[in-house]
Amino acid sequence: MRGDKDLKGKGEKVISGLKGNCIVAQSGGPTAVINESLCGVIQEAQRHEEIEEIYGARDGILGLLKGELINLRKEKSSTIDGLKTAPGAALGSCRYRLKSWSESGKDFEKIIEICRRYHLRYFFYIGGNDSMDTANKVDEAAKRMNYQLVVIGIPKTVDNDLVFTDHCPGFGSAAKYLAISVMEAGRHLESLYDSESVIILETLGRNTGWLAGSCALAKRSPEDAPHLIYFPEIPFSLDKFIKDAREVYHKIGGVFIVVSEGLRDEKGNYVCARKDRISTDAFGHPELEGISNYLKEVIESQLKLKTRTIKPDVCQQSAVHFASKVDMEEAYLVGRQAVKSALEGKSGYMITIRREKGRVYKRRTSRAKLSLVANMEKRVPPGWINRKGNFVTKEFIDYVRPLIQGEVDVPVQKGLPYYPRLEKRKILAKK
Amino acid sequence: MRGDKDLKGKGEKVISGLKGNCIVAQSGGPTAVINESLCGVIQEAQRHEEIEEIYGARDGILGLLKGELINLRKEKSSTIDGLKTAPGAALGSCRYRLKSWSESGKDFEKIIEICRRYHLRYFFYIGGNDSMDTANKVDEAAKRMNYQLVVIGIPKTVDNDLVFTDHCPGFGSAAKYLAISVMEAGRHLESLYDSESVIILETLGRNTGWLAGSCALAKRSPEDAPHLIYFPEIPFSLDKFIKDAREVYHKIGGVFIVVSEGLRDEKGNYVCARKDRISTDAFGHPELEGISNYLKEVIESQLKLKTRTIKPDVCQQSAVHFASKVDMEEAYLVGRQAVKSALEGKSGYMITIRREKGRVYKRRTSRAKLSLVANMEKRVPPGWINRKGNFVTKEFIDYVRPLIQGEVDVPVQKGLPYYPRLEKRKILAKK
Repeated sequence: MRGDKDLKGKGEKVISGLKGNCIVAQSGGPTAVINESLCGVIQEAQRHEEIEEIYGARDGILGLLKGELINLRKEKSSTIDGLKTAPGAALGSCRYRLKSWSESGKDFEKIIEICRRYHLRYFFYIGGNDSMDTANKVDEAAKRMNYQLVVIGIPKTVDNDLVFTDHCPGFGSAAKYLAISVMEAGRHLESLYDSESVIILETLGRNTGWLAGSCALAKRSPEDAPHLIYFPEIPFSLDKFIKDAREVYHKIGGVFIVVSEGLRDEKGNYVCARKDRISTDAFGHPELEGISNYLKEVIESQLKLKTRTIKPDVCQQSAVHFASKVDMEEAYLVGRQAVKSALEGKSGYMITIRREKGRVYKRRTSRAKLSLVANMEKRVPPGWINRKGNFVTKEFIDYVRPLIQGEVDVPVQKGLPYYPRLEKRKILAKK
Repeated sequence: MRGDKDLKGKGEKVISGLKGNCIVAQSGGPTAVINESLCGVIQEAQRHEEIEEIYGARDGILGLLKGELINLRKEKSSTIDGLKTAPGAALGSCRYRLKSWSESGKDFEKIIEICRRYHLRYFFYIGGNDSMDTANKVDEAAKRMNYQLVVIGIPKTVDNDLVFTDHCPGFGSAAKYLAISVMEAGRHLESLYDSESVIILETLGRNTGWLAGSCALAKRSPEDAPHLIYFPEIPFSLDKFIKDAREVYHKIGGVFIVVSEGLRDEKGNYVCARKDRISTDAFGHPELEGISNYLKEVIESQLKLKTRTIKPDVCQQSAVHFASKVDMEEAYLVGRQAVKSALEGKSGYMITIRREKGRVYKRRTSRAKLSLVANMEKRVPPGWINRKGNFVTKEFIDYVRPLIQGEVDVPVQKGLPYYPRLEKRKILAKK
């Protein structure tokens, strides 16, 4: 079964005009707009006669491994359209890691077997940097096994840490949700400075401070929250943290602090990480927790100021009800573009977003090799964090502001949003 | 100074047609609609010639103690109107406890002195059960000191625990925000059941499960989150909790749990409370924290299921961006009604909301004696929690659903809400 084809220059091989079925899957943590990309793929695929059946894999790559496919052409077009404003991953997602060819060739044999069985020629994988590693490995496996498959990655992550793309769909909506949370909680705090003087809000962001930094959007005047932001990119010093908080307290009378979950000390170790097995995911990332609780204890013991903590956790990944319209549009765009790009026949790429130069925000899509994107991480540039390492600069704000623009109307039923699911989620009988 | 007037039957004394200035203050934790009540007071007061100046006290009763008053007639009407959709307490709030007359008569002397100095005849206090205790004490002090003052309480609390009122302004919006958070986070969870199987969301609710129970609104189909809800009203058993979670997991593949911060064990002690001084507020309430983190550890060690926690904390008190229109309207209504009621001359009452019988939701206002409302707590009735003590019944849902209806448009500026502040917050020069 195993091919021994020379892998060099493989990305350049063009398989155009290929007729067959396509499959789309979602991977990693969902975002508010991950289903928008799914819609983009489905609705664009429907426009091209080269694409016959449109399948969805259940739970990301696991669906391909287990042969759990659903037929998306059986869904009503209104259901597909309705998914645009549904949180979660409509097809299900996973955090499964494909090992290397040498370690786990069997996984790849299974995947390619399913591809042959269902005559799959186009594979669209919506995910972040771990997921792009998966997509890249599937691409390599197909080439090794001489199976004609066009693999295209579709960027998705609230973390905004994919390389070669100006930003990632999902990030804008999470940034918008966090900014409004800080804005509202900040007003709450300032009402009660005398009795509850400090709030610490903990954002996602294992290794990058994109989400934490975006909270700065909430600040329109000097007294507005947030007052201090801490980033994984800047080694965290407890002494400096206490000094910063004391200074703000003496100036303003209260302190609103935003911290990224993944703060690291000067040696590069996470300030708060658990190392037991259950807390480490398939990609070997340790679970981060407790940074806000830990810093609350520090503030209370050192500064004797009553402190509250806010941990929106997955709410920042799923808040469709206040999503960014720009983000939604772009998530749809990269989904459509993935199909167009696949039909050109070049496999092994992820769709990227490029920002045009100029004062008015404009973007266009492009692409980058999956092998260069996989597992890489884009951090906040040093010049976008202030010298004290406790807030963003104007450059950061100018970068993120266009990405949170525009409101989205969600359909409401009895006072709460109506979020549809796929209707015919039945898994195809194995052929 | 101290009067020795017989206090019996004092609530019945009528002081009608009294001309003078009024003062309004906000107290305790803000809600999404606390400023709506403030608007109601101001805009109604503007309609009556008996009321001359309209003052606001800074930071609740502290403003009266310190003589920190602002002149609300100096604000533009557009600013007052804009406050309707502003989070936090526009006048500032406090958690200051007035002691009894015998312990701290000086506080009362100061307050009545300020009343005399500013010719205050109407005192409106927007707050929860602790704040109604404050209002009641001010009312008693005025009577003792033969100072003609009409004191009216305006109900406000996300906790929904005030007695004699069907429900409390602030609750509906918090309930709506929590329900949507559970709905969205629930969809996130079900996408990833294989890798992250459990979410625990912690709501406010020191002694009552109104907010935790309201999360049940998110459930429209049997698989929907939340699956389990735990209430302060039901003694918490760890064994039962583990059994419940295991059952849901085996049935559905994942578990979404809502817990009230104030769970108590069978002896009536908080499951998680800190007892150091900094964590206890002026009313002697210990700080509750860590219940979700604690239960996460329990699930991970006992069931070996990866668990995430969500703690919206003050975001559930301040989320104007998805507030309930019914709640907003009622907050305004009780503010207006407080003024009307005051002008009838009966002092020492809190405005209440009564629900009319019938299938269609209708309410009207009424009033209850402050002395009977102060410090009392309304709990979720036993029949509104299921027999297993881990979910609500239909009665609970029928009660809460009308309170979350209707959406509120917040003005948006550059992708985020525009939340105004009072413009002329200058404190009056002390006369």
